[in-house]
Amino acid sequence: MIPVSERKLVEVCYSPGQYHLYKEKFEIAVIIDVLRATSAITTALHCGVASIIPVSTLDEAREYLGRGFIAAAERDGEVVEGFDFGNSPFAYMDPALRGKTIVLTTTNGTRAIQIASDMPTVVIGCLNNLEILCQYLIEQHKNTLIIASGWKDKVNLEDTICGGAIADALLETRKFRSDEDSTVAAKFIYRSAREHLWSFLRSSSHRRRLIKLNITRDVKYCLTLNTVPTIPILKNGALVKLEYQPKQLRANGVQV
Amino acid sequence: MIPVSERKLVEVCYSPGQYHLYKEKFEIAVIIDVLRATSAITTALHCGVASIIPVSTLDEAREYLGRGFIAAAERDGEVVEGFDFGNSPFAYMDPALRGKTIVLTTTNGTRAIQIASDMPTVVIGCLNNLEILCQYLIEQHKNTLIIASGWKDKVNLEDTICGGAIADALLETRKFRSDEDSTVAAKFIYRSAREHLWSFLRSSSHRRRLIKLNITRDVKYCLTLNTVPTIPILKNGALVKLEYQPKQLRANGVQV
Repeated sequence: MIPVSERKLVEVCYSPGQYHLYKEKFEIAVIIDVLRATSAITTALHCGVASIIPVSTLDEAREYLGRGFIAAAERDGEVVEGFDFGNSPFAYMDPALRGKTIVLTTTNGTRAIQIASDMPTVVIGCLNNLEILCQYLIEQHKNTLIIASGWKDKVNLEDTICGGAIADALLETRKFRSDEDSTVAAKFIYRSAREHLWSFLRSSSHRRRLIKLNITRDVKYCLTLNTVPTIPILKNGALVKLEYQPKQLRANGVQV
Repeated sequence: MIPVSERKLVEVCYSPGQYHLYKEKFEIAVIIDVLRATSAITTALHCGVASIIPVSTLDEAREYLGRGFIAAAERDGEVVEGFDFGNSPFAYMDPALRGKTIVLTTTNGTRAIQIASDMPTVVIGCLNNLEILCQYLIEQHKNTLIIASGWKDKVNLEDTICGGAIADALLETRKFRSDEDSTVAAKFIYRSAREHLWSFLRSSSHRRRLIKLNITRDVKYCLTLNTVPTIPILKNGALVKLEYQPKQLRANGVQV
């Protein structure tokens, strides 16, 4: 067993606004925006989209739109007028998008990607790619910071649960350690939630917002585990599919 | 039963650094720093200290010291050199302090009090005064923001648990509602923790820091519920004992 002092760090940061408090010491950033940006990005690359350029502002996205790019924009859960689509994962399954580059801006998720872009490695996580992502992170065995996109710099439940699930899987190997209470709390919330994820998230204000938008199908999709064995990774400012074959699937999987 | 739209808000903010994201709409701020500032303040006023002037910086505290005040200062868990004492609750039980005014600065707690001082009402909470504080807040029936002091702008477990306990008690009356995921998460962490508070907090980094300081007696004191039926309230920049007699103790108390 690796002595505690030699274990790598895994920590959960609850929002991009807190990134500066955490960013020292980490080599890999994992960006989480379960409802729905990172679930959509993972789905898109899995379904054959060549790359996704994340941008923070609508103005940047509009500039790309003017130059003939396919551009997607979501604010407060809705598609922004003038854009091709928003962050519904189903929109990204369209075979017409295979091989294309898409420019994307969302309320929380793309901002988190931008903020963490100074990290040596930035990958994308969601519940859909949870198991393969954990396997990859365990094999990499580097100091890993999980950045929940949250909701306008506040914590949200679904990203915290997803971050807690990743931290829990890494810590269980005894090759990682955690120093932060945010990580301990995320792990406990995940463990409280995992048996009944859907009903648990009924208490989430974010989900309540999304219910108003009548996108229950999207929410159910995003809350389903291990359906999309693809890891998006940031390369030269664009998210592309990581070429990765896990050495072996972990015996017990990720228990959720 | 009060319709949801007419219920008052109760929310938990995880650190002073997030106060600006929450502060609109609230009339009462409850400041929590279980280990140990708010436990010490509550204990002091209960034991007869006349008032406590919270200041944010060591320089401010030194200025008062130069003018003959009794001054206490804690940084990173330790008494600062040149000051009379730090934030150990036991130091404030000294009969020699009865009727005195004490100036206090701590790493996290006094900063949280300063930041929230624009709120119409600021009261102090901890596990020691949990039940009487909840009773008071329920009787007031105003929009209530619980501000956890956290640890250097990050979340900490013990303040989140205490905040979750207060939110849970208020929400159970069905006279309050919550819109924020931070509140839902705090409530769940509290419910995971309440049966075994002491062992739960073993996982807390903050408690690990305090163990290094060899203050187990203080930690045990601060984690004991409902031992100090006193509510400190901010009046003209000083914390004094609120004159308050609960109409009746709630039938079921605060379950922890």
